[in-house]
Formats: sequence, structure tokens, C-alpha cells
Amino acid sequence: MIEKLYTELETAYPEMVDIRRHLHMHPEVSFNETKTAYYIRHYYEQLGVDVRHNVGGNGVVATVRGAKPGKTIALRADFDALPIQDQKDVPYKSQTANVMHACGHDGHTATLLVLGKILHSLRRELEGTYVLIHQHAEELVPGGAMAMIKDGALDGVDQIFGTHLWSMTPLGQIDYRVGPIIAAADSFTLKIQGRGGHGAMPHNTRDAIVLGSQIVMNLQQLVSRRVDPLESAVLSVGSFVAENPFNIIADQAVLKGTIRTFNEQIRDLMEEEMERIIQGNCLAAGCTYEFTYNRGYSPLVNHEKETMYLKDIAEQVPGVKKLYNTPPLMIGEDFAYYLEKVPGTFFLTGAMPDGEVYPHHHPKFDFKEEAMLIAAKTLGSAALHAHQ
Amino acid sequence: MIEKLYTELETAYPEMVDIRRHLHMHPEVSFNETKTAYYIRHYYEQLGVDVRHNVGGNGVVATVRGAKPGKTIALRADFDALPIQDQKDVPYKSQTANVMHACGHDGHTATLLVLGKILHSLRRELEGTYVLIHQHAEELVPGGAMAMIKDGALDGVDQIFGTHLWSMTPLGQIDYRVGPIIAAADSFTLKIQGRGGHGAMPHNTRDAIVLGSQIVMNLQQLVSRRVDPLESAVLSVGSFVAENPFNIIADQAVLKGTIRTFNEQIRDLMEEEMERIIQGNCLAAGCTYEFTYNRGYSPLVNHEKETMYLKDIAEQVPGVKKLYNTPPLMIGEDFAYYLEKVPGTFFLTGAMPDGEVYPHHHPKFDFKEEAMLIAAKTLGSAALHAHQ
Amino acid sequence: MIEKLYTELETAYPEMVDIRRHLHMHPEVSFNETKTAYYIRHYYEQLGVDVRHNVGGNGVVATVRGAKPGKTIALRADFDALPIQDQKDVPYKSQTANVMHACGHDGHTATLLVLGKILHSLRRELEGTYVLIHQHAEELVPGGAMAMIKDGALDGVDQIFGTHLWSMTPLGQIDYRVGPIIAAADSFTLKIQGRGGHGAMPHNTRDAIVLGSQIVMNLQQLVSRRVDPLESAVLSVGSFVAENPFNIIADQAVLKGTIRTFNEQIRDLMEEEMERIIQGNCLAAGCTYEFTYNRGYSPLVNHEKETMYLKDIAEQVPGVKKLYNTPPLMIGEDFAYYLEKVPGTFFLTGAMPDGEVYPHHHPKFDFKEEAMLIAAKTLGSAALHAHQ
Amino acid sequence: MIEKLYTELETAYPEMVDIRRHLHMHPEVSFNETKTAYYIRHYYEQLGVDVRHNVGGNGVVATVRGAKPGKTIALRADFDALPIQDQKDVPYKSQTANVMHACGHDGHTATLLVLGKILHSLRRELEGTYVLIHQHAEELVPGGAMAMIKDGALDGVDQIFGTHLWSMTPLGQIDYRVGPIIAAADSFTLKIQGRGGHGAMPHNTRDAIVLGSQIVMNLQQLVSRRVDPLESAVLSVGSFVAENPFNIIADQAVLKGTIRTFNEQIRDLMEEEMERIIQGNCLAAGCTYEFTYNRGYSPLVNHEKETMYLKDIAEQVPGVKKLYNTPPLMIGEDFAYYLEKVPGTFFLTGAMPDGEVYPHHHPKFDFKEEAMLIAAKTLGSAALHAHQ
Repeated sequence: MIEKLYTELETAYPEMVDIRRHLHMHPEVSFNETKTAYYIRHYYEQLGVDVRHNVGGNGVVATVRGAKPGKTIALRADFDALPIQDQKDVPYKSQTANVMHACGHDGHTATLLVLGKILHSLRRELEGTYVLIHQHAEELVPGGAMAMIKDGALDGVDQIFGTHLWSMTPLGQIDYRVGPIIAAADSFTLKIQGRGGHGAMPHNTRDAIVLGSQIVMNLQQLVSRRVDPLESAVLSVGSFVAENPFNIIADQAVLKGTIRTFNEQIRDLMEEEMERIIQGNCLAAGCTYEFTYNRGYSPLVNHEKETMYLKDIAEQVPGVKKLYNTPPLMIGEDFAYYLEKVPGTFFLTGAMPDGEVYPHHHPKFDFKEEAMLIAAKTLGSAALHAHQ
Repeated sequence: MIEKLYTELETAYPEMVDIRRHLHMHPEVSFNETKTAYYIRHYYEQLGVDVRHNVGGNGVVATVRGAKPGKTIALRADFDALPIQDQKDVPYKSQTANVMHACGHDGHTATLLVLGKILHSLRRELEGTYVLIHQHAEELVPGGAMAMIKDGALDGVDQIFGTHLWSMTPLGQIDYRVGPIIAAADSFTLKIQGRGGHGAMPHNTRDAIVLGSQIVMNLQQLVSRRVDPLESAVLSVGSFVAENPFNIIADQAVLKGTIRTFNEQIRDLMEEEMERIIQGNCLAAGCTYEFTYNRGYSPLVNHEKETMYLKDIAEQVPGVKKLYNTPPLMIGEDFAYYLEKVPGTFFLTGAMPDGEVYPHHHPKFDFKEEAMLIAAKTLGSAALHAHQ
Repeated sequence: MIEKLYTELETAYPEMVDIRRHLHMHPEVSFNETKTAYYIRHYYEQLGVDVRHNVGGNGVVATVRGAKPGKTIALRADFDALPIQDQKDVPYKSQTANVMHACGHDGHTATLLVLGKILHSLRRELEGTYVLIHQHAEELVPGGAMAMIKDGALDGVDQIFGTHLWSMTPLGQIDYRVGPIIAAADSFTLKIQGRGGHGAMPHNTRDAIVLGSQIVMNLQQLVSRRVDPLESAVLSVGSFVAENPFNIIADQAVLKGTIRTFNEQIRDLMEEEMERIIQGNCLAAGCTYEFTYNRGYSPLVNHEKETMYLKDIAEQVPGVKKLYNTPPLMIGEDFAYYLEKVPGTFFLTGAMPDGEVYPHHHPKFDFKEEAMLIAAKTLGSAALHAHQ
Repeated sequence: MIEKLYTELETAYPEMVDIRRHLHMHPEVSFNETKTAYYIRHYYEQLGVDVRHNVGGNGVVATVRGAKPGKTIALRADFDALPIQDQKDVPYKSQTANVMHACGHDGHTATLLVLGKILHSLRRELEGTYVLIHQHAEELVPGGAMAMIKDGALDGVDQIFGTHLWSMTPLGQIDYRVGPIIAAADSFTLKIQGRGGHGAMPHNTRDAIVLGSQIVMNLQQLVSRRVDPLESAVLSVGSFVAENPFNIIADQAVLKGTIRTFNEQIRDLMEEEMERIIQGNCLAAGCTYEFTYNRGYSPLVNHEKETMYLKDIAEQVPGVKKLYNTPPLMIGEDFAYYLEKVPGTFFLTGAMPDGEVYPHHHPKFDFKEEAMLIAAKTLGSAALHAHQ
């Protein structure tokens, strides 16, 4: 059975490339992916696949039911693009100004569509049910995942698998990890309000720069003292702005930064202790503040059993040369929410292009398209073997 | 004699006002006061007063020699304006866009010109010599005083007196002080060069915001620990700029600020210890820096004997109601350099206008013109009595 | 009259020395000076001087009434010793173990007793009234001055004068100062209570050393930012103790230090802002604290008129070679409270011994006894001339 | 074969208890364990086991050679005690004042001796060679392991296994971990030398308390900024002592603390960056310092293959109910050095006593003796199965 799947995927690979390039030329930003959603839905409708659209927004969910009983396995691909001007010089360059598939979601979609088509074609021989989740709006908080889940995307699902094509990892490598693989990526803005004045008369002021500096220094203790040293957390103040003439004492300072954590307790601790430190320091300085803590996605925590299963499966996939137990990544990914509901795992499929490599979200980002075939085979194999 | 001087000054007061308003309407910024300089020179030449122009730049020095022997007394008035748009609604409003006499130097000039004219008219009855120093470029470092001194403005001078019309002090009040009356006002710029990076990967960076904050905190020790508590010093960081997206670690931060001191030893100490603190902190952080310390004028230190003399003299001047032993001011004034060469004193002549009061350098700044008469009488009395 | 006083004082100088040495051999610590008080009272009683004892404790007040009308002038001398073991090798060494006149109050007492005796002998020729305040307990807060004032020591007094024999100033020099001449010397103790634990598990603790360090750093802002730079203030943390094995996180830290100020507003500000900083930082750190701020004596602020009067008087005193306008001293002196009630001045009488000079409160402290004669003449002259 | 081993061990359990209790009553501190070493050597000699003594000090190495070819497997037990007064009330209480087996090394020794005896008795049926390493001086840096290795203890060894009886873990549980399981535990002492002085005169001093505080604050950046957030590291300043009267400025401060890391690169980084921060801050403050960084044992890093092997083996051992993937421990253990030379693993054998549980190194420490049997079976099984 699995060999048949592999063969069919290999045969359909040119279609996969075509779809990917079509989507690449017509990107749509998060929460505005109506044409892409229609494209996906239409693809399944033409094949006669059971498909539901406007799931939690622009989301599309197709369902392939095997003839034999078995588990219900979900596979997920996201399909939104980014507000970036494509700077590549390729025939399939984005045709929309300032919008670009700079993170590979076009590839995810092409992979899942073709895999779905083939599962559909094999349905009479298959056990179980296959839920193909095409998710909108992964790039923009609050993301599409939560709304799709609320709208039933995971109903009846036993396990879920997802992957990200990854330009920083060589073709043929799969990165897996038990437990937290992707951080919660939060941000904050802190406005300190002191009282300005003449640089020569500090006693009539409340110096916002000194207070801001004091807060920056004291925030170092969050990671050094308040987080369990066996856990990972990062707090970086990336921006400190109090711009004035030299002979003034600053009335205001604005600090911005990011917090990365790998579990919700540490995340809560960071937010709570940050505010405690800010509050205490502002009290000490006689100043007021506005503090906004913006939560990005939850940390993405892979389930052990499904991850080790995926690892074992992937080792057998043609084209996979290396399984890498990756350290966690500090980015964000709303696949996290699926794993809060059902067991599963999220992995990276190596897609490093030849020549110069650009990171995800770069205006010249691209990936090696053969990676789609490996991703499709790995997801397909994980889905088919789940009933054994 | 003194009564005669007072009477003549009172008679000439309308001319003083005319001159002041003429100058007010035709302001020139520092180091560009050619027309004003010509106006002054021409005034003296028409009267037959001995006058030297282009002294150290646009400076003008007139000399009135009394018939009898006596000391040589210098009186000084500055005559430059500021690059500010006049926002007053008065007939004598500035006619030059973006240039304005916003600090009262027009009044200083009118005061000294008319006083000089009267001293000239009384010269046969006078003891001693009167050097009338019309100084350009007080508002802009390095100022005109040092160049005029180098060019001989103080040659043969025994004592010098100067005043500033002061809009924050009521008419009829004279502010004096033995010792330091005006601070040295220095400034600095510090560029910290760290190594930027992704907010989630601090270990690959050298965080310029943390270092900047650390330096701000440590600089507090300059005043709290390193300056004699019986001396006065101020260090204010007025500007802290490291503007970045929230998820970045800053590679650079630029700090600007001001230092105010009242004697040269403390000033040297501040500069030296600042650099020591910056250097040590940058070493600790593995970062580099560019530090520029810009010296403004020296602290203006009044001589005890001449100040107490001026105070006694001023108490007798008609119109003077109060002598106030003022705390030192944190501004800057290059009269400081005259007092490094010859004994003398600098005082403030109350010139608070009716109605709303605007500080010096404000676009609506104005002063009470009657103050010019008090200033002229006080300077004149100080000059005439100096020979007793 | 004044010449007569000087002559009598010179004649009585040997008695002054005898009294001083007697007292030096029999010192008594603050609030326990019963024998010394009896000695003083007995001295006056034998002379027939009107004397009141147990004034506000061990205080003694004698009153000499001149035959002619005039002001009531108070002169004050303190008479307590210190809990220090005398280490001098002189015949008049302290005969009491661990108690010593290590600050010259024995000399103050001898000076005033002999001056009182002579004023008494001259009373028929004198104008005004002379109140001779022998104060106990100057060395120990709350001191004897406030209690004696409450008990009437200043009743009817028009002006008061006092001096301190000063071993750091040469014989023949008088140090005076208008305004604050002696600081308020306060102290504090801060106990920080965190939560201790194993050095490897900071997240289970509240690190008292980090908090203590943070407070020390932030307290620097009191002087650098919150006190008017034209005022003087000092805050020094002199002791920081959190002693533990190396692999522990400290649960407690105890900080001690001193605060010196020259006026009550700044003093109040220092106390208030200290507590604000401590409170805010402890809040930020999730710790508690006990903060005790112990006020020493008020700043001693000399009245301008009486000080300049004393300066003029002192210049005429035989033996006085130099009047020095001293910077303020950072010690403490409860003469401050008399000056809060009546005008007057406090000055230092140079009493530097030959050979090695030891500071006040040193176990080898001594002073040049001739200084008593100068002190007596200056105080006497100030008292006699006050009626003119 | 393995069943035979288990049976023999069960039979010999009373002897194991006897040996343990004998050793418990006669503890010897690190580097002074001569009688214990003789006891061990004598035990083997009586059995006719090949034994080498004085290996790298007091170390003893016995060798059992199986009749059939196979790998050479080392097992290690340490045998030193601690300078602690035994406060237990049991018949086998320490008979030596102030010395106590407060960490269970008596149990380790009994376990290995009896296991060695049985391996010797089975030698004709065994494959491979068994090296029984009885190590002295585990409790005291530099420890006995390095010297024994140098003296040949690991010569020809293919794999090594070791365990620690662990009173904090329930009987029947084995704690394992791939990779770092025990931290490097280093310590430091920092003496800051400033310049002391009077609390009121900071400008004449170099305040060691302010500098110490500044260093404590800046050291927080080691963990928060300079260590990869995916790595673990701890720096705790546990002691800060600058004890002085309140009115003094401290000339010296002594800071002590601990550093825990799990790999040598991070450890080197911590030491290097600590010194950089200290050096820079001392430069900024114009002070000098003495900094001593004392390295404890290296981090103990278990090999993946041997650890997973041990885990699989242990799951089969009678009495083992739970295998726990433990987070790393922040203590120190010189078993680390064996694993730098040969593959192997170190695990914890649950030995929690009934009733109240005291931590290791506590004066009332004890452990459940049945744990020795489990330890012996697990080590024995690991050794026997290694040839398969």
C-alpha cells in the first residue's frame, strides 16, 4: 500500500510543482486568503472529495474516508502569505505587489492537495479517515487554528501531523523533537511616564531614562533568578527610545521587546514577574507606566509517542537521509493549538535550496521543491501506518 | 558727579529704547553680526569716541578717557541674537525670519551705547578710563569673549563689570553672588557599538541596550560618590535612542546629555570619571564606544571684593529696591573668561515684564525696558566709584 | 571694660587649666554626668552665682545679672565624655577605665566656668544678663539641649553663642560660617527578608543579595537625581552583610549607612525617597523589609547677623590671627536646637596641639589648652558687646 | 545465567547489610580511607580475586575474568565518608566522632563487594572481564577518579557503569538520563579592594559596596544574555560581606558564590565572562580585585547508547517498578571523568527510607538497605548482558 502511495506521489510531483508555483504567483495575506481558499475547495470539489469551506474563517477541511475502519488522522497545511515584496527573479515570482509566499505555505498547500487527491484515489483500499486541514492565517496572531478548531476541524480526529518545509535544513533531513519544539513568541511594549525638565534641575523631574535603564537592568533577573535553570526562557528589550535634546531630562521612554518560552507556566511566570518588576521600579521612581504584554502563539509541544512514531516512519521514507533531534526553535506556530486538543507531532522537512540560502520571511526566500515530495510521503506514510 | 550721570541717563532713556527696538527689529545670529557691529561702531564714531572694530571677529571696543588719572574699568555688553522665530505681536518685532533677540542682548547693547555716550560727554570731569566692550557671539560656543581678549580687549583693564537683563527677576531687583554664579554647561554624546541579532538568541549578540542601561545606572555614581558633596554637579542623560523592531537585539545605542559644574577641577573630574565608567562598562560588555565630551563655557566665578563692592553700589542706585544673593544658575555665559583675566563681577538686573513671563530663548520672550535704565545706572555707578 | 575682661581671663588661665585637667581625669559618659554636674553647680554656688541644677536632666544653668539694663545673652558649654579608653600618656589622663574626654568638652566647661566667674566679679559694671548654659549629653542622641530648652534654659534669652575647641584647626584661627555649619547626621538600618535556598535553584528563592545590590545601586539616584544639585547631601551604605556558604542563596541581607544633610527639607526628602526606593525594589523582588531611619541632631544653621557680628568681634580678640569661612562639617552637634529658638552662632576655636594631631573621638585625642583662653575671650567679648 | 546471579545476590543480601553496617560504623574521610581500603582489598584477597591496591591513592581495583571471551566492563563504587557528626539513633551509628557515611558510599561499597564475590564465583560460566573499581575520595575535589584513571583503573575497559543510592527517590525507581545528568559545580571568591573612608566624604573613597552591588547586578547578564537560552547555567552570589560601622565607606567587600553548568563550553564561557565583567566594573570604579574561580568536577555526561541500554536492562530487574527520565541534578560527581574516557552511564537507585527522609549530607541521613540489592542486580545485569 505504502509503496503505491509513494509511486503515485512521484508521478504527481509535476502537478505539485505547478500548484505550488501558481499559488506562489498569487499570494494573499493572512485573513484575506479568499481566492486561495476557493482554489483549494474547488480542487477537492472537482475530485468529488467531501469538502467544507469557511471553516473558522477562510479555512477549508476536506475528508477522505477509507473503505475499512480505522482511526481518524488529520494532516494540516497552512496557506497564507506575507506582506513582503518578492525580490526573487524567477518565472513564478509573486504577481501581487508587496505580498509574497515568503515562508513556504504555498508548498505546504500543494503537498497536501496532491496527497489528498491520491488518498482519495486509494480510498477503497484504505483503513480509517483522513482529515485534510487547510488552515488560513498562520502568520498573524490570533491565527486561524483556534477558530478552525472551534468550528469543528478536529472533531473526531485521533491524531494529527504537520510539517514545515524548512530552508535552513538540507534536503533529505527531517527535524523532530519530543516535547517543546517551537517557542511561544510574545512581545511587550512599556511606556514609562516620568516628569521631564531641564537637564540641570533633576530634583524637579522624574527621569524616565534612568527608570527605563533601571528596569532593563532589573529585568535581567527574570531569566537569571526567577526561571528554573533547567527551563529555557528569553527576554530581550529590543528597542529603547527616549529621544530629546541633550539638555533635557526625559519625561517618557518607550521600551519594546520579546519573550520566548517553551511552556505555559514559565510564560505566565515571565509575564507576571515582568509586571511585578516594572511596577516596583516605577513605584520606587515615582513614575507611572503602561505595560502591554502581547501573547503570540502557545509553545508547540510535540507528544512523545506520536513523535517517536513519526521518527520511525520517516526513517523508512525514500529520500530521507537523516533524522535530526533538533533543539527547539524560537519562532511561533499555531499548530500548537491542535496539539493541545489531540495527540500528534510537528516536524521540519529539510528544503534548503541550492546556492545562496535566505531565511524564512526574507524577500528572496525560496525552497527546494523536491522537499514537497518528501513531506508528502512522510505525512502520507504517517497517516497510513497509524492504524497498525 | 553720580547724580549728574543719573540725570543724563534718565534724559537719554527714550534714545535707549529707540536703539533697543531698532536692534530688536534687525537681529543677527552669532558670528554673523556684521550690521549690528557696524551700527555700534558708527554710533561711537559719530560721537568722536575712540573705537576699534573687528576685535577678535565682529567685536567692537570703545574707549572713553577721563581727564583725571584713575583706574581702567571695563563694561561689557553682548549683541548677538538667536536662530528663533519671533512670535511676539509688538511693533518692534523682529523683521528677519527665524532670527530673534530672545535673550535681551539688544537691551544690553542699548544700555552700554547710551552709557558710553554720556561717559564721553562727561569725560572732562572724570577720573580714569572706561573700556566699553561690545561683544559678539555670546550664544554660540566658543563665543566671542576669548577671541576679543586675545585681540586686546582687556589690555590695561583693572576691573570689569557686566550684567544680564533677566526676565525671571522683578524690576528693581539685582541678583549678585560671590564665587560661582553661572555653571559650566558641557554636553556629551556616547555611541555604544554592540553586536545585534535576533531577540531570541542573546548569546550571539552584545546587547547595546543592556549596556546603555548599565552605563546610565553607573553614571549616577559620578554625583553620588565621586564629587565632593559640598560641591555642585549635575549629569543628566537626556536622550537614549536604540530604535528597533521588538524582536531584535540592539547593535547600537546613542546617549546624549549634559554636565553642569561650578569649578574646573570638578569639571575635569566629571569628564575623566565619565570616560572611566564608560570604558570599564564597555570592557565588561565586550562592546566598543565613541565618546565625545563637548566643553561649553567655563564656570563664571565672581570675585569677592568686586561683588561686594557692586552690591554696596547697587543698593544706592535709584530704582533698585532689593539685592538678592542668588543661588548659582545652571546656564552658560562667556563673561567667565574676562573674570579669569581681571577682577570683576557679573550680576543680573531684574527685567520681568508685566503680564505673562516667558523664559529666555522663548519665541515670545520680552523684557521690561525700564530695566535698561537701572542697568545703566548701576554699571555707571560701579565704574565711576571704582577710583575712590 | 573688654580690656579688663581680657586681663582677668589671662590671670585666671592657670585655674582654667586646673579645672580642665581635673575634669579630664574624672570623665563621665552622656546622661551619667552627675559628679561633673555637681562640680559645676558647686563652683557657682561657692561664688554666690545664681545657679539652677537638674535642668532637663543633668544640665546646670547659672545666671549673672549685670547692674545695668541690656540684652540677655546665653553662652553654652557641654560637659559629657565618651566611652573610650584614654591612651594618652599625660599626668591628667583619665582615671576612669573606658571613659574619656575625647572631644574637648572638659575644656568647654573650664572655659565657661572661669568666664562666668569673671563676669560675676564684674557684674556691677555690666549691662544685661548672662546665662551660662552647662549642657549634659551632647554626644548621645537625643542629647541634652532639647530637654534643657524645654526646662527653660533659653527663657528670656536674646542671643546665644557657643564654640567648639577644634584640634584640627591651628591655634589662633576661628572658623565661622553663615548658614549651615554642621550637618544633620542620620543613620539607617535596612533588613531585607527574601527566601533562601540552594545556590543551584534560584527559581525557588527570593535572592536577598541581588535585591540588596539593586537597592544600593538605585539609592545612588537620591543624591544624583532627587536632591537639588545646589544643596548638599550624602548617602553612604557603609555595611552590607549577607554571610553564607558559597552554595546558598541568601535569605537575608542587612545594610547600614549614614545620611548627611544641611537642611530639614532635604533631610525629609532623603528619608521619604529612601523608603520609596526600598519599598519599590522590594515589591519588584517579592521580598519584605524592615527599615529604620534614625535621626541624629538637626543641622546646625548659624544666623547671618550674629555670625558676621561674631566674626567682627573675633577679629579684635588678642591671640586671634585668622578668621576662616569654613565649609560645613559633616559631624553632628545639638547646639542646633538652641539656634532653632533664638538667634546666635556656633564657631570653632582652633586648638591644634603640637606634635602629632589626633582627630576628635580618638583614644589619643588632646588639644592645646591656650585655646581655652582665646575661646573665653571671644565668647566674653561677644557677650559684652552685644548690648551696643 | 542472570537468574542465577539474582538468586545468589538475594542469598548474599544479609552479608551485604553486614558489610554496609560495619563500614557505616567505621567511616573515614576523603583521602584518609586507609582502613576501608584495606577492608576492601582483604575481602577480595581472601576470595582469591585478583586485586590491586593503592591505585591512584587509596583506590582498590579488583578484576574478575570470565572463562569466555567478551568485553571488559567496569563497575564503580566510591567508599569515602564525610566530616559530619552522625546524629542517628541506630545500632550501626558511626563510632568515629565527626565522621559519618552521610552519602551512602558504605552502601555502594557493600553492593559492589558482594556483587564482585558472586561474579568471581560464577567466573567459569562468564563471558568477558569485570573490573571492580573501588574509588576513594569522591567527596573532595580533586577527587579520586582522575588519579585512579591515571594509575590504570580504566585500562582495557570497554564500558563503565555506576550508580548512586538516592534517598530522595522511592525504592524501586531508577533515575536515568541521556546526556548531562549531573552539573559541574564550581565556586568563586571575589575580593574587591576599594579605598575606605568617612561616610560623609565619598569623594575621597572608592566605595567597595557600591562596586560589589554593581558587579552582582551585572553578573545577572551572564545567564540572561551570554548563555544560549537552550543551555542551562546558574550563577548565584551566595555571600556578600562588607561589615563596617554605619558611618564608614567600605574599603573591601568579599563575594562568594557558585556556578553550575552542564557542558564545558558553557563552563568556560561563564568563567571567562565573569572575569570580564568583574574586570570591567573594577576598572570603571577605580578598584582592584582578586578573583578565584574554583573548578569542581566536570559535568557528568551519560552516553546515549549505554544509557538507553541500562534503561532497557533495568526494566527487567526484579524489584524495579519505575524508570524515570530525571532532569539533571545540580550536585557534583567525579564519575564524570570515567565517562570522558570510556562509554557508560551513571544512574540513581531509589533508596528512600521509611519515615522521615533526610537529604544527603544531613547528620541524620540514612537509606533503605534493600536498595543495595536492586543496585547490585542492575549493575550485575548490565555487566552480564553487555556481551550480547
